[in-house]
Amino acid sequence: MKAQTNYTMLCDFYELTMANGYFQSPMRDQITYFDVFFRDVPDGGGFAIAAGLEQVIDYIQNLRFDEEDIAYLRGKGCFQEEFLDYLRTFKFTGDIWAVPEGTPIFPREPILTVRAPAIQAQFIETYLLLCLNHQSLIATKANRIVRAAEGRPISEFGSRRAQGAEGAILGARAAYIAGCTGTACVQADRDYQVPATGTMAHSWVQMFDDEYTAFKTYCELYPNNATLLVDTYNVLKSGVPNAIRAFKEVLLPKGITKCAIRLDSGDLTYLSKNARKMLDDAGLTECKIVASNSLDEYLIRDLLQQGAQLDAFGVGERLITSKSTPVFGGVYKLVAVEDENGVVQPKIKISENPEKVTVPHFKKVYRLYDNETGNAFVDVLCVHDEEIDDSKDLELFDPRYNWKRKTFTNFHSRNLQEPIFLGGKLVYQSPSIQDIQSYCAGQIDLLWDEVKRFENPHTYYVDLSPKLWQIRQDLLNKKRF
Amino acid sequence: MKAQTNYTMLCDFYELTMANGYFQSPMRDQITYFDVFFRDVPDGGGFAIAAGLEQVIDYIQNLRFDEEDIAYLRGKGCFQEEFLDYLRTFKFTGDIWAVPEGTPIFPREPILTVRAPAIQAQFIETYLLLCLNHQSLIATKANRIVRAAEGRPISEFGSRRAQGAEGAILGARAAYIAGCTGTACVQADRDYQVPATGTMAHSWVQMFDDEYTAFKTYCELYPNNATLLVDTYNVLKSGVPNAIRAFKEVLLPKGITKCAIRLDSGDLTYLSKNARKMLDDAGLTECKIVASNSLDEYLIRDLLQQGAQLDAFGVGERLITSKSTPVFGGVYKLVAVEDENGVVQPKIKISENPEKVTVPHFKKVYRLYDNETGNAFVDVLCVHDEEIDDSKDLELFDPRYNWKRKTFTNFHSRNLQEPIFLGGKLVYQSPSIQDIQSYCAGQIDLLWDEVKRFENPHTYYVDLSPKLWQIRQDLLNKKRF
Repeated sequence: MKAQTNYTMLCDFYELTMANGYFQSPMRDQITYFDVFFRDVPDGGGFAIAAGLEQVIDYIQNLRFDEEDIAYLRGKGCFQEEFLDYLRTFKFTGDIWAVPEGTPIFPREPILTVRAPAIQAQFIETYLLLCLNHQSLIATKANRIVRAAEGRPISEFGSRRAQGAEGAILGARAAYIAGCTGTACVQADRDYQVPATGTMAHSWVQMFDDEYTAFKTYCELYPNNATLLVDTYNVLKSGVPNAIRAFKEVLLPKGITKCAIRLDSGDLTYLSKNARKMLDDAGLTECKIVASNSLDEYLIRDLLQQGAQLDAFGVGERLITSKSTPVFGGVYKLVAVEDENGVVQPKIKISENPEKVTVPHFKKVYRLYDNETGNAFVDVLCVHDEEIDDSKDLELFDPRYNWKRKTFTNFHSRNLQEPIFLGGKLVYQSPSIQDIQSYCAGQIDLLWDEVKRFENPHTYYVDLSPKLWQIRQDLLNKKRF
Repeated sequence: MKAQTNYTMLCDFYELTMANGYFQSPMRDQITYFDVFFRDVPDGGGFAIAAGLEQVIDYIQNLRFDEEDIAYLRGKGCFQEEFLDYLRTFKFTGDIWAVPEGTPIFPREPILTVRAPAIQAQFIETYLLLCLNHQSLIATKANRIVRAAEGRPISEFGSRRAQGAEGAILGARAAYIAGCTGTACVQADRDYQVPATGTMAHSWVQMFDDEYTAFKTYCELYPNNATLLVDTYNVLKSGVPNAIRAFKEVLLPKGITKCAIRLDSGDLTYLSKNARKMLDDAGLTECKIVASNSLDEYLIRDLLQQGAQLDAFGVGERLITSKSTPVFGGVYKLVAVEDENGVVQPKIKISENPEKVTVPHFKKVYRLYDNETGNAFVDVLCVHDEEIDDSKDLELFDPRYNWKRKTFTNFHSRNLQEPIFLGGKLVYQSPSIQDIQSYCAGQIDLLWDEVKRFENPHTYYVDLSPKLWQIRQDLLNKKRF
């Protein structure tokens, strides 16, 4: 159904200058390992949500340079002809492991790991980051908004304020994964099965000679989906009375009691309380009140604390752009190479900014769950050849303050990353979007409430295995200036 | 070259429910007028920059429902079969006027105006807004960053943090319109002629046994484009000395003195001052210093005020997402309809929030320029049948405080909107992107410095003609509650 877009040329130019350089060197076929990870949770939250893997898979499968691309690159005048010729048959032949979409993720742990020849692994950097950064950002934000609404449905309404077409379409997909019940975006429904809904704009009301006729006409057209927008002129003096009249004259005679009004401006607490009373007094106790107008998790929490009589929310620009933190800072860093004997050699990047120093090596990520509560309590980064034995006690220490040690008992562990591509072949079947949504909700249920606070959440531990910690320490000591 | 994407289904569901409703009513062929306008300049700035029109044109020309779309819509179970049949031949047959891309724009004035049958005009709302909002947002932000750099080149580096593929590609386009000199995004170059450049990532340096060999190899490969990233290990103790050695050993013997280093972490002022001294002491006075690392207009202004020795900037996430204000609040509002006699009848939307009350009617926007300085000093919204006579004095008043009156003399005026589509036919040829960039810079030169301040800029006047003001007043009085 959805077009398979070829985003091969959505790369940074430096990936091509480096590729052309590797091509002319012995490093051309050297196996490299890159990790995708992030450093800070948006909005100061306690966790993020991984999303975007399905689009990474599409990208890898569609990776190819066509003749126009090669002609364009030749025109840049800086690439060897042999290299351009090599690009004609370029494809991804490596391995990719990743955490499934919908998984809660934490800073510094690898969300996705690539093992591939240097040119390939370096080349896919930009699109992988773009994809995972964008959808993880929106999923993380959407889930905050969903949690603020305490069970009330959140519909994603933001296409018109999205940053480009994919911002709207894949943003709606990410929002749904994180628990939104639907979207206004029709293409997100057609292509990604995110249920789309919608009723009327202010212009519908303005097109009629009066508001009542606009409402009545709408109820006649869509008696089973009548959500009337009541703020075109005046909510309490015009909108709600006209809506009540239309509901009573059109819906009730058909035996339909399910209906709704939408408030899109003004003091939503005041208006909703008064509208609720007017609706109840008219016997329309099943009529829901939906609110929209630049909402986010903070405003929704405040509205509910103030006793606003709201049953559902439409959330637009602040969700679809993650307005309060519109950047998810995922990075893509070289963590290891294989030497001529196929031995994995860890690589580190130091930095003037200590928080930018990387965790080296080809790694595994284990999540440990408490056997009593079922809750997740620590993630452990290990060297690729380590296993965690659930039957034994495990002593771990904070990688920054290694005198902080703790022994864990009575847990079970899960290797978070799953194989996605092996030897260039897709070995993973993406779950349906509904299954991703359920999995996401289930995994968030296994986090402690303290990690789910909007402000000042408890920092979830991401520790290094003693072996990995020692390797990092040795590399740091070697590079000391 | 670039694929013509069909974004017909990138609409809000309510546009389809309303269309199905209009289709079954006499309003089906009623001619309506909609304006796109915005209410607030991002970042509290004094003006925004219009961008995205070229993509609006592509969209209108590609507008069509295919059989899969119609089958999908039928499956929703709420659309009349006659309506679905009508969609098979749906196309845009109306008129569109718009301000050219690169024009400085101000709150409340129509950036784009649509005249079309109700169904068509309503249907295109989402994509028009998405397109104009996104690119105007990025152009506005990019221009702030360009101005902060005071003539030093700004390169757009943000693809990996963009909100989706178009966020990256069209964001790079908008940034170039607003004065950036290039982008890292290859696809923006191939498809939109935004010059792409790039050199190396930290991984290039890590792949070699030592930093010097990495630099030397790069200089040998690209002697005419050697920008070396010097912060993989330690800028002053390792990066800069190794860069100097590579430049001296590889470039100078070839007679090449143009080269650069890039700082991507740490204290950019301190590091750049020391690096400058080391480069100068080594005789590399033509070596430029480029900085990146989460920069924006405020940080660049501060760096320059502190005397940082920086010649160019790479700006990523804070530009490509307009991080400090990631939403451009353009809206699409019904402003008039034609009655059965073809007479244009103004329409207004009142609101609980006074700033959301619309300016009704089919309008023109004039910009008045002072004949002495050449500077733009006021925009005037008129009724469509009004003309501004440059040879006569013009008395205007503030639409909110109508006792504030002013008479303007010795000016010339320009009708800002140009016809884009007439009767569904494209009548406009988009300028080249280089011409848009030049036009944009020229128009910004005609704004007073007070309007260009980053903080607390002077509010540029957008006035209503006395005739338009009176029409609005009459409509407000009629709707009074």
